[in-house]
Amino acid sequence: MTIAPPDALPELHVDLPAVERRAALPGGFRAGAAAIGIKASGRPDLAIIATLPDEAGRPLPAAAAAVFTPNAFAAAPVRLSKAHLAATEPSGRGGYGWTDGVVSTSGSANAATGPAGDADQEAVADALARALGGPIERTLLLSTGVIGTRLPLDRVAPGIAALAPALAATDEALEAAAVALRTTDSVTKLATTTISLPDPDGLAVRSVRVSGICKGVGMIHPRMATMLSVILTDASVEPALLHAMLRRAAARTWNQLSVDGDTSTNDTVFVLASGAAGAAPVRRGSADARAMAGAIEAVARDLARQQAADGEGATTLITCQASGARDDADARAVARSVVSSSLVKAAVHGRDPNWGRIAGAVGNARLADTAVLLAAGMRALDAAARGGGAATVDPDRLRIAIAGHLVFDGATGGPLEFDRAAARAAMDGPELLIRLDLGLGDGTGEAFGCDLTEAYVIENSEYTT
Amino acid sequence: MTIAPPDALPELHVDLPAVERRAALPGGFRAGAAAIGIKASGRPDLAIIATLPDEAGRPLPAAAAAVFTPNAFAAAPVRLSKAHLAATEPSGRGGYGWTDGVVSTSGSANAATGPAGDADQEAVADALARALGGPIERTLLLSTGVIGTRLPLDRVAPGIAALAPALAATDEALEAAAVALRTTDSVTKLATTTISLPDPDGLAVRSVRVSGICKGVGMIHPRMATMLSVILTDASVEPALLHAMLRRAAARTWNQLSVDGDTSTNDTVFVLASGAAGAAPVRRGSADARAMAGAIEAVARDLARQQAADGEGATTLITCQASGARDDADARAVARSVVSSSLVKAAVHGRDPNWGRIAGAVGNARLADTAVLLAAGMRALDAAARGGGAATVDPDRLRIAIAGHLVFDGATGGPLEFDRAAARAAMDGPELLIRLDLGLGDGTGEAFGCDLTEAYVIENSEYTT
Repeated sequence: MTIAPPDALPELHVDLPAVERRAALPGGFRAGAAAIGIKASGRPDLAIIATLPDEAGRPLPAAAAAVFTPNAFAAAPVRLSKAHLAATEPSGRGGYGWTDGVVSTSGSANAATGPAGDADQEAVADALARALGGPIERTLLLSTGVIGTRLPLDRVAPGIAALAPALAATDEALEAAAVALRTTDSVTKLATTTISLPDPDGLAVRSVRVSGICKGVGMIHPRMATMLSVILTDASVEPALLHAMLRRAAARTWNQLSVDGDTSTNDTVFVLASGAAGAAPVRRGSADARAMAGAIEAVARDLARQQAADGEGATTLITCQASGARDDADARAVARSVVSSSLVKAAVHGRDPNWGRIAGAVGNARLADTAVLLAAGMRALDAAARGGGAATVDPDRLRIAIAGHLVFDGATGGPLEFDRAAARAAMDGPELLIRLDLGLGDGTGEAFGCDLTEAYVIENSEYTT
Repeated sequence: MTIAPPDALPELHVDLPAVERRAALPGGFRAGAAAIGIKASGRPDLAIIATLPDEAGRPLPAAAAAVFTPNAFAAAPVRLSKAHLAATEPSGRGGYGWTDGVVSTSGSANAATGPAGDADQEAVADALARALGGPIERTLLLSTGVIGTRLPLDRVAPGIAALAPALAATDEALEAAAVALRTTDSVTKLATTTISLPDPDGLAVRSVRVSGICKGVGMIHPRMATMLSVILTDASVEPALLHAMLRRAAARTWNQLSVDGDTSTNDTVFVLASGAAGAAPVRRGSADARAMAGAIEAVARDLARQQAADGEGATTLITCQASGARDDADARAVARSVVSSSLVKAAVHGRDPNWGRIAGAVGNARLADTAVLLAAGMRALDAAARGGGAATVDPDRLRIAIAGHLVFDGATGGPLEFDRAAARAAMDGPELLIRLDLGLGDGTGEAFGCDLTEAYVIENSEYTT
């Protein structure tokens, strides 16, 4: 029996700054959380993240950018946040603008609640605006929890009024906000990185922090959006550029994440930039913009991986990395198809080096990911118009490695002999790497998922609306 | 508490002829099966369905039409069958042509086996052609089972030679062929209907039979194709028209079926028409063509429902019917999104009338089913080019009924009070109907799926390549 060299398809080098899994509040912000009884458990369920006011106590808005769920049943907080961003920066059409602060309620999604739910959310925004002293249009809203239940306004509005004066500019306060975002999450999800950007004179550098929090373990299959997350930075980035950075990061991280194939009604990511670090404004097209985009992507990627690892019922974080694709979009589509396959997910749970299911998922990628390809623009539309005839995968060129074991090489006839016991043993850990090489070009990409377990089924068949 | 009227959204009337779940071999065919040791279990694993020869013993070809998997890793039997159909009728480009018989091997998919697998499949076709006495191009091939294993040619070729002389023109022989198709199927899947068509003079009618067999309980999420199935009829239908009928039926039945979101490498449906009933050839555009298409669709629909009910680990057949859509394609897309949702499937398993997850899946339909919409042609491409902006669902018009209980009405604010205990009780059976009305137009459609259970996970995490 031939033992394939374990480094046949090495892990891809991801060129992003290192991330720490802790809360580190960037300059210019304050945060806080409280338990006000939206959750029956009594756990924290209200969070506010706001900018620091100026010396006169007036709110000082931060640049804000957002990506939202494309679900046609977008929840009330999603629709209101879009409207508010659009009001502060009409050119951004709801994708970017300015904000004094974000309020998050957890335990009720305020989705599919009709006009009454919209009125409730408006009242939440009003309470935040009053508490912060700014216009209602500069508030942003997040909500998560059960679909179809109303927010308990009689608790939320007084809760905001009570919490706002207690907001603190500390790391602990940001972590408390992250805790209050959680629903069925088993861990609090935090990620922080730091980069250097030039000061306004360009003669020295300033340390700039990017710190993100997020929640989400089920109904996760983001498309052009993601789960709830807030990323803060004290860099100075104008809203439109911040939005471009966020969209690129989401396409490469959260849009490559799947837990169960369902896209939530409440998916939202906000990135807020205060400028408080005193660095020069980041200019579009500069090396600084590239560094800043990398920092945001690094935080987004790490948060997405934390979500995959904490997927409902999951025991294993699956990372699929593809190289040799015609382009990066193809590589991402193929990787995403693999981590989204129920059969691959079940095989990983059984520690079965079942490359046949991986090959099957690779072969489906063109179809399964049409939506993602469409989002990539006219190139994909063209391909679709040609009947999807442009070959993105070629069985005779594909190579597959599972946990470092090369198991399939299309160029040499397909299936390889490999040490099945060693491969099973290598699969037995909290993280699994599936590597693909398509042998067609220079495109690379990755996707994140988790195994499918009995516990997922039990959790989701017993969780009641 | 208001109890919603149980008939608020009645079951849609499906205008198709009645179907019996039994094998009934149409005139002009013979069939048979054997156990030759491809399956380790020793169960039947080889089947042949062939036409009856003429009086001189020469093979008499039947009109044949096919739909195949769009998986880029299409298995060797899929690629060879396409090539053979194209050789017998070049205008059909592999979608239709003529055949003397179909051979099916079960236990090995002969997928991802490279050039060696192609050579194996060629040898299987050659053995069938020799046994039937016709050209190799008039053979069709099916295979199902584990991906990546080679066919045991030393058993298959002699097995075909031994089985061919024993083929019989009996119902039992067709049922035996259906049994031999099975892999993890817990039941044999059979469906038969009968319609009347005019005789050649048009003065009397002839009884025409349509009878189908199929297999498939996992890796089921057909797109422009389906799982293994063979449908036989003794009507006289020319290949191109037969292909049009099959494609319409597949779009309305199998392409609306999902067990686990994975599309197999081997999906194939063949429809064979012998003309042996002595009815007049069915003419394109006639009322007879419509009746014939309905009979094929009736058999396809019933087989698809049998597959959904027998989905791996499933306890409940889920039918989602949508009315009030802008058009039928939209209705099918929405219904398919609901039955494909892991969260809806888990909720059904828990007998939880969780309309929030259904609403979430409805809201995702535009995205999840882009591939299906693309298949529907330029209309969908146009919509995609407009950013998917054309509203196919409107939360304020949607109504949802679960097992006869109206639980959501967008027009009156959304969630309705309903008798939760009664709804749970009504959900507790082997079949569940989820009814949607979109309130936008006259489009209707349905989709079929099953609940997601612990047993699915156990079965698929322990099944080894």
